[in-house]
Amino acid sequence: MRFFLPAALAALLLSLASTVFAADEDGYDLWLRYRPLSGTAQTAVKAQARGIVLPGAATPTTNAALAELQRGLAGMLGKAPAPEARIADGSLLLATPTRLPALTASDAALRADLAALGEEGYLLRATRVLGHKVTLIAANSDIGLLYGAYAWLRGAAIGSTASVSSAPKLQLRLLNHWDNLDRSVERGYSGQSIWDWWGLPEIKDARYTDYARANASLGINGTVLNNVNSKPEVLTASFIAKTAAVADILRPYGIKVYLSARFSTPLELHETSTADPLAPEVRQWWKNKADEIYKAIPDFGGFLVKANSEGQPGPQDYHRTHADGANMLAAAVAPHKGIVMWRAFVYAPKGAHLDEDRAKQAYEEFKPLDGQFAANVLVQVKNGAIDFQPREPFHPLFGAMPKTPLMMEFQITKEYLGYSTDLAYLGTMYEETLESDTRTGQGAGKTVAQTLSGMAGVANIGSDRNWSGSHFDQANWYAYGKLAWNPQAKAKDIAAEWAALTFGPDQRVVRPIVDIMMVSREAVVDYMTPLGLHHMMGTSHHHGPAPWVDNLERPDWNPVYYHRADRNGIGFNRTASGSNALSQYAPEIARQYADPRTTPEQLLLWFHHLPWDYAMPSGRTLWAELLARYDRGVAETKAMQARWSALKPLIDARRYAEVDQRLTRQVNNAILWRDACIAYFQSVSGLPLPPGVQAPAHPLEYYQSLRYPYAPGRG
Amino acid sequence: MRFFLPAALAALLLSLASTVFAADEDGYDLWLRYRPLSGTAQTAVKAQARGIVLPGAATPTTNAALAELQRGLAGMLGKAPAPEARIADGSLLLATPTRLPALTASDAALRADLAALGEEGYLLRATRVLGHKVTLIAANSDIGLLYGAYAWLRGAAIGSTASVSSAPKLQLRLLNHWDNLDRSVERGYSGQSIWDWWGLPEIKDARYTDYARANASLGINGTVLNNVNSKPEVLTASFIAKTAAVADILRPYGIKVYLSARFSTPLELHETSTADPLAPEVRQWWKNKADEIYKAIPDFGGFLVKANSEGQPGPQDYHRTHADGANMLAAAVAPHKGIVMWRAFVYAPKGAHLDEDRAKQAYEEFKPLDGQFAANVLVQVKNGAIDFQPREPFHPLFGAMPKTPLMMEFQITKEYLGYSTDLAYLGTMYEETLESDTRTGQGAGKTVAQTLSGMAGVANIGSDRNWSGSHFDQANWYAYGKLAWNPQAKAKDIAAEWAALTFGPDQRVVRPIVDIMMVSREAVVDYMTPLGLHHMMGTSHHHGPAPWVDNLERPDWNPVYYHRADRNGIGFNRTASGSNALSQYAPEIARQYADPRTTPEQLLLWFHHLPWDYAMPSGRTLWAELLARYDRGVAETKAMQARWSALKPLIDARRYAEVDQRLTRQVNNAILWRDACIAYFQSVSGLPLPPGVQAPAHPLEYYQSLRYPYAPGRG
Repeated sequence: MRFFLPAALAALLLSLASTVFAADEDGYDLWLRYRPLSGTAQTAVKAQARGIVLPGAATPTTNAALAELQRGLAGMLGKAPAPEARIADGSLLLATPTRLPALTASDAALRADLAALGEEGYLLRATRVLGHKVTLIAANSDIGLLYGAYAWLRGAAIGSTASVSSAPKLQLRLLNHWDNLDRSVERGYSGQSIWDWWGLPEIKDARYTDYARANASLGINGTVLNNVNSKPEVLTASFIAKTAAVADILRPYGIKVYLSARFSTPLELHETSTADPLAPEVRQWWKNKADEIYKAIPDFGGFLVKANSEGQPGPQDYHRTHADGANMLAAAVAPHKGIVMWRAFVYAPKGAHLDEDRAKQAYEEFKPLDGQFAANVLVQVKNGAIDFQPREPFHPLFGAMPKTPLMMEFQITKEYLGYSTDLAYLGTMYEETLESDTRTGQGAGKTVAQTLSGMAGVANIGSDRNWSGSHFDQANWYAYGKLAWNPQAKAKDIAAEWAALTFGPDQRVVRPIVDIMMVSREAVVDYMTPLGLHHMMGTSHHHGPAPWVDNLERPDWNPVYYHRADRNGIGFNRTASGSNALSQYAPEIARQYADPRTTPEQLLLWFHHLPWDYAMPSGRTLWAELLARYDRGVAETKAMQARWSALKPLIDARRYAEVDQRLTRQVNNAILWRDACIAYFQSVSGLPLPPGVQAPAHPLEYYQSLRYPYAPGRG
Repeated sequence: MRFFLPAALAALLLSLASTVFAADEDGYDLWLRYRPLSGTAQTAVKAQARGIVLPGAATPTTNAALAELQRGLAGMLGKAPAPEARIADGSLLLATPTRLPALTASDAALRADLAALGEEGYLLRATRVLGHKVTLIAANSDIGLLYGAYAWLRGAAIGSTASVSSAPKLQLRLLNHWDNLDRSVERGYSGQSIWDWWGLPEIKDARYTDYARANASLGINGTVLNNVNSKPEVLTASFIAKTAAVADILRPYGIKVYLSARFSTPLELHETSTADPLAPEVRQWWKNKADEIYKAIPDFGGFLVKANSEGQPGPQDYHRTHADGANMLAAAVAPHKGIVMWRAFVYAPKGAHLDEDRAKQAYEEFKPLDGQFAANVLVQVKNGAIDFQPREPFHPLFGAMPKTPLMMEFQITKEYLGYSTDLAYLGTMYEETLESDTRTGQGAGKTVAQTLSGMAGVANIGSDRNWSGSHFDQANWYAYGKLAWNPQAKAKDIAAEWAALTFGPDQRVVRPIVDIMMVSREAVVDYMTPLGLHHMMGTSHHHGPAPWVDNLERPDWNPVYYHRADRNGIGFNRTASGSNALSQYAPEIARQYADPRTTPEQLLLWFHHLPWDYAMPSGRTLWAELLARYDRGVAETKAMQARWSALKPLIDARRYAEVDQRLTRQVNNAILWRDACIAYFQSVSGLPLPPGVQAPAHPLEYYQSLRYPYAPGRG
């Protein structure tokens, strides 16, 4: 009887807690939900953590680790074990060799394992320490312990008790916020910027800490707070103080702050007479500015720069090279161990002579500079050569600049893949790029992942309650973080882990959700830009189909520039008989893709202009294949919604409805894309619709008349 | 023993619930928090609601009432009583005479009481019905029952069990959202617009329902969804569908939707060749448009119009009057029982000849039109004649248009009173205006409140988690709603009720909070614009002191236009020897205010230009008094923070810190205002600072050099 009562109490308490939590499933907690575990899972987790032991002096980072473990265990078990001073059987022990010399004193294997982890890695294992059976979270640093704590909590939440040994493959794992100082977000679809610049430094939103927790849980270790289209004011004293307040909050979580710097800042602030990177007054200004920043933020990360691209100022304004510009800034931050990330996303200035193929410009400008950049400069390259399209071949700069550390720039926010309204899991897209073989290895394969020193993700984080505008867009943040830690991780594994953390480990839920996620990006490709088509979205806001647009100021802003459809055929000839962008790739690739028969079907019209009656492997003509792909996109989207509907009994009502509403929207969007594109391409090809293909619901003029005023994300 | 266990369980469950809630005090729940009551309070409330009985058929509105009662009781008691079919002793009975004819069949007194409540009123009382002792919530309509349910829950939450009989004194109780279609908010300081136009109609934010609940709890019965600076697109089919989706959500809560209409809409949509309100094609267009809207939204409220003001189009563009414009729209919505709210906030078009006093224009344009407006037109007048200043005398139009129904327009968002960063309770400001005697009564007094047919509050609601940008700004929404229901309610009572609902009924908490609130607006007046000064804020964003600004395009945009300070004196002479704006008031007021000795000190420099050595009632010179007021503003603000600090042990950590951070900011802001204004006025007066007055920390040039880039709220 005496034992029965506490058990009944605990069960009731948990059932209440569970009720309270279920009512609150609004997505704010992301993948750190820590909902009550099932009884058997509780027993298993309790046995691993009868008490928490962290030897040595408390630091802000170890405090963060302990607080997270207590929060997580309180949520999953109803009650968290207390921190304890002494190791005992069943302890959850967090230790570094420095904090607990006994840890490795007589354990050469563990010593070796730890040595392999570097500064940020961690290991989890069930072992004996000082004669006690413990669950060990070990690392070489406090931040490693924090990462290990998050990893252990993940395992506890989804029932994985495997030993883990994990170290990041990339040193720089950053978010790039395209957030403006007025809190608008360029290409943001999840509310305002989370950075309340106006309120800072006095007013510190509680969300900043939760942002740090979420990112640290993935191993993200840096964040650029402001838009690459930057403003001079961000480097004034007032904004440095605001930035410092954010840095103070993120620091315990191992996250450094960076700022996007506008190249002409000193000139625009009227503090120099030029922004020429070789002018001594300019070099001195930046040196002084760096000193000023580092005085306020001793571990400031450095600068991200978009220069001479889309109207931004840059060194070319003074007939200097990108290397001249980057190296000048690098010299200013080098004494403080800062870095400069210089973006390779450049295209010809407005009004200037346009190369016959915009895809070629970055390679042409940057490849010759390989070897000229200072040691603390990284060149940041978008995954593809155009602009974050639903599908692009990997950027030819990867593997082409062996003397220059490169960063991958992925877009997490879905500028071209349906904002936060359409469901598209980007893990598969990132994976596709990262595992592409650049054929630049000496004999062996060399994937894009293997050419990288760091990764940057254009954040999809905003002030929406669920952070990312939709529940499934949280998965893209998650997948990005996981791939930045390990670019060889598998998108499907990540999806499964995310789904289990986000919707609970019940496989009846996880499997269908993973199925939805794994087909979702290809569905978007199909209903927007199948077979290698690209950049056919509406002007400026990039919403809705607009393949007909041909009257914009710059040729390369027009969809017709990219699809080149006419009565005879469709596609962009990038072979030697065309723009020859193909020549920027390694010879093996250039040879393979020179022939449409050996070009991957999914990139066919990226590299080739082909007649409408070109015979596809399916046996269909290109025309029929194109129509079939559009229709498949719609069918896949409907199937996604049907799969989701079947989950209704297993998902809390609020999240079920919120996802379902978006899937309804997405089906409508897919139909719109299909019908508009079929109507347009038929008007160009003049070909009849093959039997069985449904005609668009409206005439072409209807689709052309649609407008999307006040579409979000223009910042 | 068997009785002991459930009690122990209940206590533990409640203690857990309380812990869970306490961790979540982020302000989202507003005054509808329903936190667990103390034991004695629980006993009292349980006795009033052993079961909930609502006879008759369920409607969306009665469902809302039942759901709210169950939510509230579950929160306050741990468990909600079930709805029951039969009245019994201890029932909480919700009934109308139609739903339960027995209610009034043999109770003439109750019948009479109910008859006096009108369509929206309600009464709460402990009584006997059908032989049973019940707690009765009675009304003549379902919406009355909903209002009654909220009122009863309020009483339960704060321990009030008094009988209540309440009916709204104003028929129209509206919010005006100055929300743009791109989700920016003009003069918004609490995040983006809650209206996600892009996501609508498919995507319906859960927040819309909570918005409806919060407003219905105050009796607000209408909302204008979009900015008075409106766009033509809001009246296109796509936005009507979005508006209808919102209307469907708000309808059960008794809240009608309205739209701000741009006067030139048909012309700008290229559907007419003019916007002349007398042109048949224009009249027909609006009639058709109204029919289209009412087809989608049968209970659409009508239009709010800002015309011929600050660059907005209007009937004067065609040499027609405001009445011509308003009546044309009124004719379009009249068949559907819609209304038109026509704003009286007008000032001379840019570049036109400026009256010597902008304060006079609205009266001059509108007073002559009294009697010319259609029956379904209301004229909406701001509380004062300038523009939502920290203090203004009441607008002279109140009482001056006896043949025209007038609406009061208050600003809830604090454009001129410190955004959402400074704490200023506006209840006292609203009360001051509403209880002002216009002296237009025939013999008897006639307060501003008594001249009104409706009230509009420019909303301070946004997508910030706490809705209003700060916890205390919620009180302004609350006070506005309460005063719209009853314009004779007392600001202090409202403050006490709000504080008890928001921070709990402990008087050790409520009293100091009410003290802070009651002095807060006067503190802002003191450190910004004491003694009747006005409009001295920074250009455009209205942040920070800028009394020196004298170079803006229009004279009346410059602070110097308003304070008229020079070597000899300060203040705006609005007596007969000056602009004579005073003549727009009733003769008794005009006579009293003609003499500075009989003008209320708080309005002194609004009506008079006086020498610096003018002798104030305090015995000080005007110069010394001005300095003393600025210093008092700083002292009051510091005292507010000190009072708040003393509450630390009694307030949850998150809300304590969030308020404290803002008070720190406010103290800094008060010091900035004081020092900048003293530095400036000293430069003008050339007078020494009296002994004991602290000199500004910086020279005037420093204050003049301050800039506030990216300040929020410009929309």
